[in-house]
Parts: sequence; C-alpha cells; structure tokens
Amino acid sequence: MFIRGVGRTKFGVLSQSLQEMAYEVIIKSLEDAELSIMDIDAIIISNFLGGPLSSQLHLNSVIASLLPDINIPILRVETACASSSIALNQAMYSLQDYDNVMVLGVEKMTSKSMVGQTESIQMAADKYLDQAQGLIFPANYALIAQQYMLKYGLEHEVLENVSYINHQNANLNPLAHFYYKKVNMEMIRKSPIIATPLILFDCSPVSDGAASLIISKEQNSDRNIKILSSQFITDTISLTQRKNLTSFKAAKIASKKAYKESGVSQDDVDILEVHDCFTISELIALEDLGFCEAGKASELIMNDEILRDGSIPVNIDGGLKANGHPIGATGLAQIYEVVTQLRGEAEKRQVEGVEVGMTHNIGGIGGTAAITILGAV
Amino acid sequence: MFIRGVGRTKFGVLSQSLQEMAYEVIIKSLEDAELSIMDIDAIIISNFLGGPLSSQLHLNSVIASLLPDINIPILRVETACASSSIALNQAMYSLQDYDNVMVLGVEKMTSKSMVGQTESIQMAADKYLDQAQGLIFPANYALIAQQYMLKYGLEHEVLENVSYINHQNANLNPLAHFYYKKVNMEMIRKSPIIATPLILFDCSPVSDGAASLIISKEQNSDRNIKILSSQFITDTISLTQRKNLTSFKAAKIASKKAYKESGVSQDDVDILEVHDCFTISELIALEDLGFCEAGKASELIMNDEILRDGSIPVNIDGGLKANGHPIGATGLAQIYEVVTQLRGEAEKRQVEGVEVGMTHNIGGIGGTAAITILGAV
Repeated sequence: MFIRGVGRTKFGVLSQSLQEMAYEVIIKSLEDAELSIMDIDAIIISNFLGGPLSSQLHLNSVIASLLPDINIPILRVETACASSSIALNQAMYSLQDYDNVMVLGVEKMTSKSMVGQTESIQMAADKYLDQAQGLIFPANYALIAQQYMLKYGLEHEVLENVSYINHQNANLNPLAHFYYKKVNMEMIRKSPIIATPLILFDCSPVSDGAASLIISKEQNSDRNIKILSSQFITDTISLTQRKNLTSFKAAKIASKKAYKESGVSQDDVDILEVHDCFTISELIALEDLGFCEAGKASELIMNDEILRDGSIPVNIDGGLKANGHPIGATGLAQIYEVVTQLRGEAEKRQVEGVEVGMTHNIGGIGGTAAITILGAV
Repeated sequence: MFIRGVGRTKFGVLSQSLQEMAYEVIIKSLEDAELSIMDIDAIIISNFLGGPLSSQLHLNSVIASLLPDINIPILRVETACASSSIALNQAMYSLQDYDNVMVLGVEKMTSKSMVGQTESIQMAADKYLDQAQGLIFPANYALIAQQYMLKYGLEHEVLENVSYINHQNANLNPLAHFYYKKVNMEMIRKSPIIATPLILFDCSPVSDGAASLIISKEQNSDRNIKILSSQFITDTISLTQRKNLTSFKAAKIASKKAYKESGVSQDDVDILEVHDCFTISELIALEDLGFCEAGKASELIMNDEILRDGSIPVNIDGGLKANGHPIGATGLAQIYEVVTQLRGEAEKRQVEGVEVGMTHNIGGIGGTAAITILGAV
C-alpha cells in the first residue's frame, strides 16, 4: 500500500472557508499524485468541529458538491484531534475494493470567538467529568505536567526548550503557522501563565488548515511512499478515569502493534512526528513510543538528540506547537512532513538519510492514539 | 459476513443520556449475539449531533469509558441521517482484521429546544445554499413534493395514506416512537401545514434512540443473518445543485450496485425499509429502488401493495414517520427490523416467508444514500 500524492495548505489564521481549503488540497494532492479526480474511487474526510464552528456537518456531501458529477462513496470520520490518522486507517481497508482513495483532513477553527473556540474544543473532553469542572485542555495537560514534575523532577526549562526547538524548526517551514515568527528563549520564558506550570509558549495555537493524501494499491513512481503500519487504540476519555497521568496507554499499545506490524524498531526510525499539543506531551510521546525510558525524555531534549542532526529528529516541520494544529488535518500534516522527508524534498529542513518515519497523533487527553509508520520505496 | 446480534432502545423522547442509550444497546446486542464485550475487536460509532446538541464529540473515547479496560480501536463515522448504514459499511471492511465488530448508532435529539434542534439538523444541509435561505428540511422536501405533484399529478391523499400505514405499523411495534398513538385519517388530514404541501403528519418526529449490531466473519447460529450487500454513494448537498428533484441519483446508483453485488433483484425482496423522513420520500424510494417506474409509486401505495400482506411490505416497523428518526441510529434500526423479520421474531408484525430484506437510508436531501441487502442463512 502506497501514498502516491500529498498536499496541504499553509496553516494559520486563514481567510479561506472550509470548502476552499478542502478544494485547495484536493487539487494539490491530485497534482502531486499525477492523477485526475476521475481516478479517485472513494474519499474519507476527517473533520472535528465543522458542526459547532462552521454550522456544517454532512461534509461528505459538501465535498461531493465541489467535485464534478462523479458520485463516489465519501464519508467523514471523527476521533477528536486524531481524526485524520484514523481516516487514513479506514481508507487503507477500502483499498480492498478500490485502486485509489483520497484522505482529506480539514479544519476551520478561527471562524468564531476565542470563547466559542474553547467551548467547541472542549467537546473532545468528557461533558460531565471535564467540561462541567472547567477542565479545559490546557488545565488537563497542566495536571499531567504537574504529575510529571513531581514524579521525575522535571524543570520547566526543558519544556521551554521543546517550544524553542519547534519554533526554530517552523522557521524553515514556509507552510507553518509560525513560519514568520522569530522566537527567543527570553520571549518564551516571559510569556504569560495559562495553567500552571504551562505558559503560553507551552501551548499549540488555534489554526485553520487542510491536508490530503492519496493512497493506492500499486506503486507508480519512486516518489511513492510505503505505508508500513497504521494502528490506533482508544482509552477512557477523562484523566480522572486513568491510573497513570504521565503516560498514554493507548499510545503505548498502538505503537507496540505498529512496531510489530511493520517490523520496524525505534532504532530504525529516522524521523518522528509527535503530537505536541502541549510541550509536555512531546516528552510523554518520546517515552510512550519507547525512544527512552519513562522520565528520561528530558535527556534526549537537553542533549539535542531531537534536532535535525540528532539521533532522533522530532517535529522537524515545527510540530503542533509551531507548524500549527488545525485539528482535523493535524495527523495528515504529520504524515505530509514524513512523506516530504522520505522523498528528500524538505529543502532547508531536510534530514539526511531518512528511510523510515513515524507519526504519533493523539485525540483528547490520550483517549485516542494513532501511530503511522512509513518507509521509502 | 454475518450479523450475529442486534439491539435497540425504544425510540421517542427519552430521559436517558447519550451514554445511557449507548450502554443499553451495547448490552442488548452482546446478549443477542451470545458474546462478551471481550470478544469485540473494534467498534464503529454512528452519531450526527453529539457536538451541537450534547456538547460531546470524541465519542469513541466516551464509549471506551463505558467499557471495561479493553483498549480496542473505536471510531465515529458521520454522514448525516445515513451515518449508521455507512458505519456498518466501514465495519465490514475491518472484518479483514477482526472476528467480531460492533456497530453502534446513537442520537440524543431532545436535549435542546425545538429551535436548537432545527438549527442543528440544518447542519446536514448546505450552509450557503440552504441554511442561509431558510431552506429547512421540511421546506426542501416540500419543494420535492411540489415538483412531484406537478410532474406526476400526485394527490396529497397518497401521502396521507403513507402516513396512516406507517402509524398503523408502529402500533404493532412496542419500540416505536408512536407505538401508543392511535391515528385516523381525519387526524392526519386536519393536521397543520408545515411547508406546503407537507402537513404535520407528512413529517417524521424528532426522536432519541440507539441501535447496535455485531458483525462476524463466521456464522455461529441459524439466527445469524447474512449481509448480501452494503453500498453507498454521495451526491451534491443542495437541491439547487440537482437537475432532477423527484429522484435521488445517489440512491439509484447505490441500489444498482447493491443488486449487482448481492445477485438479488427487486422481485426477491420480501421486506423493504425505506427512509421516509417525509412521506414524499417513501414514494421516491420505491421508484429509485426500481419497485415501480418513476411517478408510479402511488399505485403501489393505493393498491395496498406495501402492507404486511402486500407484494412488497414497506416500513413494517413504522418507518421514520412512526418508528422514529434518531438520526445516528436510524439506518441500524431499519436493519434491526429486517433482521428481526428474517429471523421470524417480529411477533404481531411478522411478514410471512421473509428470506431477503433491504434497507434504504438517506443523508440530507439525498446527498448520501446507503443500501443494505440482507438474507436469511
């Protein structure tokens, strides 16, 4: 099974509507795959907040209206912030019947006020256990960071470093939300507290954006990328239902299954995209995926191992922190970066000798975890 | 591929929450299948308005919280009112990897005011072409009915008959929304106009409810039901984008594919469940599925052919009109009825000699159409 074409918009506060962003990436991925829309047998859409923020559900039919008169099967998948990785997972099954399937992730988040955005994003957390308690996402991840600090003696400086590295990476990614933004350690340290111990620069932004890709049964070019594994697992929705706050069980199980399915081990992974919705989750990801032991991610970060020339380059596109986090498109954007790196087309941010890449995409506070492992052909 | 167990709640204005309804049908379908939750390898959820009406998305993780500590893949599919038929379609693909997959449709609709409900349901129609023009669903289907009347000389009496028959059927279905309600032709005729020519009794109600089923690779009992075909097709979202208002192209294409895949023809179908969100759509369904020519459905209806002892019994559970229309569960409820009839377990409403059944589930105003064909083992 191969990824034959990819496409994405710039991420950020965009003037485009949901439909316009979707159309842009449909065309881009078709061009990249050297296919026509008539070659596409089915489309799986990923979107999280089309209902609450754009008053638009039934997106499969909305997307059908953007296409010529082709009447193919289209459907939407939603699993909060992990929606697009799971859309890919489902699309892979349908290659049983089809030659080429498009996966399309799109999110319009900036159409409402910040209050409206926060209320809507909260729908990924439990209504009774989280929403009713005011446990917004920064607060939930702050609880995780507090626990991590207590357990492993983490200093906030490490989180500042995660933020700084991601912003430096984004400065080399013209499509990143914060491509333009020059950030230094002083700016990070002086940023306001959001939920102790998390400050503004620990948090990913609210972004608009879309990404898409086309998967095919057959390889047709050496620019194709092989899908070695796609796995996802679900866990309880609220932290209040978990035994361990400093690790996501769903990510551990899904990654073990993905390593097994692909035959790839951590040592084989040349580039890694992790779901750093908050800086603390980058540490947890490194540990859950087995790149270090629990509590030891700080060492990888402070020893520069996650940089472009380090032993395990992480979030070279800027990550959710600085590339942006348009929820329904985030997983596909991670895959877009891995595909671009595997093809050797990442220009200034190209990592050398990339043969295997991996993405880690989380829904909610670890209630969903999806792992994708890709390889050069 | 087999349906091994089914379960549903009563439909209506229920006091249960989304979670409670989901839990009820999880248990019911497990008991019916004689399986434990530990036997379930994955779950596909169907829900349309959890976000706007219950402030709860990320339902895959919410459902994981209802289950013991099993950490399986769960995801949600949404395609407006056709969501649950398409969830089944996706679940069938995943039997590639799994032995038993649950499909779970749930909708809590009565949690908000009627205005809130109408605004939310409108999200299945186009934001710019329908919502902005005030083209709510009754108005859209009224345009269809007007066109049908102009084209084929339909009298409203036929629609009244559709409504009456569906209500009569629901009086034999203890789980139907309007099980308790005695309806006569005078009540129907005197009901208020909603959108000319549609009156109150032409419209399906706003219902809460849930339904689920378990599909398995292997047959384990003669109560299992064989899935002969599941097909779905997408079309443009707005009537303003269509050439023909009195037929749904997506339903025609999907049913042709389903007949071909199953090897079943109209003559083989012993029981039919169609998506009568408004009475006029029952006529259009009979024509799109080839049970009669375009414009001729009135004859089937007025000649009592759609009754329990007619040549093609339709909506014997009461249909959307009187069984109810909890959007994310509707397609599965149609399948529940066909399964129950195929098993010979429909008690007072049992149709004699049922060997093949078919469901027709529509999203929006025909933007999505899903066809399922089932057979006795």
